Amino acid sequence: MTKNIKLRLFVDGPLGAGQTVLLTKEQAQRLFTVMRLAVGDFVALFNGTDGEWHAEVMEAGKRKGVLLCRDQSAPQLNPPDLWLLFAPIKKARTEFIVEKATEMGVARVFPVQTRYTNAERLKHDRLQAHMVAAAQQCGGTYVPPLEPAQKLAKLLDHWPGDRHLLFCDETKVGQPVTPLQNAPRGKWAIVIGPEGGFSPDETARLRAMPQATSISLGPRILRADTAAVAALTLWQHALGDWGS
Amino acid sequence: MTKNIKLRLFVDGPLGAGQTVLLTKEQAQRLFTVMRLAVGDFVALFNGTDGEWHAEVMEAGKRKGVLLCRDQSAPQLNPPDLWLLFAPIKKARTEFIVEKATEMGVARVFPVQTRYTNAERLKHDRLQAHMVAAAQQCGGTYVPPLEPAQKLAKLLDHWPGDRHLLFCDETKVGQPVTPLQNAPRGKWAIVIGPEGGFSPDETARLRAMPQATSISLGPRILRADTAAVAALTLWQHALGDWGS
Repeated sequence: MTKNIKLRLFVDGPLGAGQTVLLTKEQAQRLFTVMRLAVGDFVALFNGTDGEWHAEVMEAGKRKGVLLCRDQSAPQLNPPDLWLLFAPIKKARTEFIVEKATEMGVARVFPVQTRYTNAERLKHDRLQAHMVAAAQQCGGTYVPPLEPAQKLAKLLDHWPGDRHLLFCDETKVGQPVTPLQNAPRGKWAIVIGPEGGFSPDETARLRAMPQATSISLGPRILRADTAAVAALTLWQHALGDWGS
Repeated sequence: MTKNIKLRLFVDGPLGAGQTVLLTKEQAQRLFTVMRLAVGDFVALFNGTDGEWHAEVMEAGKRKGVLLCRDQSAPQLNPPDLWLLFAPIKKARTEFIVEKATEMGVARVFPVQTRYTNAERLKHDRLQAHMVAAAQQCGGTYVPPLEPAQKLAKLLDHWPGDRHLLFCDETKVGQPVTPLQNAPRGKWAIVIGPEGGFSPDETARLRAMPQATSISLGPRILRADTAAVAALTLWQHALGDWGS
């Protein structure tokens, strides 16, 4: 059966053959009022754990709707066990970073306050919704949880002994980029500093951690959002699920 | 002499020891009205060819200003001979792509119209100004020229025989990312498709070009702006000036 899929939608409940899915009020408004979908139309659903399913609209109301899962259209694709720690920056660039974390394949996202972080208040729910939208758009089946903002120093106080840290060290600008091919596999986190970099004591602390590999990102200073995508690319290519 | 550098500024004329620099009306307004700089203050100047120079404000008027180059603060850093071809997308993401091309180290930027390009009119001067701002902010000394928009097909008709093409092929999603370490060095271009990808005939044509290396960018579909940064990272790390 060839189906014309009108959109991809992240939903909260379980997905499986014959499973019915109740839409929230907001989802129903989007599908039936904004997008003008009707009974018999198909959408693609994912929930972060059960892969992607093609589902048929069975009831279409102004404030409610019922879908029926027909068949699985893609298996669940989970990211590697990689965390991203970043210092929130201006709104548009923070949105960009969490969007790119979703697209590039990160398991959990940690906004961290550093010494030089401009502590604009983080709109947690809005950012998490932005990540859901990114997954809906780019065909992903996983949405990384966005952790509450916390102090970098506190997070490092309790850092898991078995989780490696890829520390993008601005003070290494101009040094060759260390190849990661021979770095250990396993659990990792990438840590990206704020505009203005880490403070000297933060840099010293990160460098001294036994779990840390510090890395240059080339001869030019990169903005935090660029550094996030570049570091994710290097890691995914060498140690993640982009390799062979 | 320790100088407190108030900002970095891209200027049009030559830079060198003892060289005076006349500001444009807009630059004078920015420095003296907006930023409130005064005679005796220092700024950093670059022009894309002569490195970065510390310059002292000698005259500060509402609509004009004179600076004097004191000493060179950084050598000129030119990017490798790498072009970026991309299909313009929505305004914010197009701005993002040209900004990232500037930060990551690209020699020339080519907006190309493809079969599926949403042909929003490109604001050429505005985008070029955005690239200047990116270089000012990230400490770069080079601003890639932004070429006028043209059709991809026409550009490929006259493609230089000695310029390799890194073709980011969306249809390869899920295949392992080919390592570029053994690819030939020399002149290259990266080509990134629009949202929706290249048309089948464009894909076939790019693949068939003897200069082309087609590459997957991992198991997830990346947006065009993400793909640009990821491809630039892989290329710079393997073949460009990020390596050893």
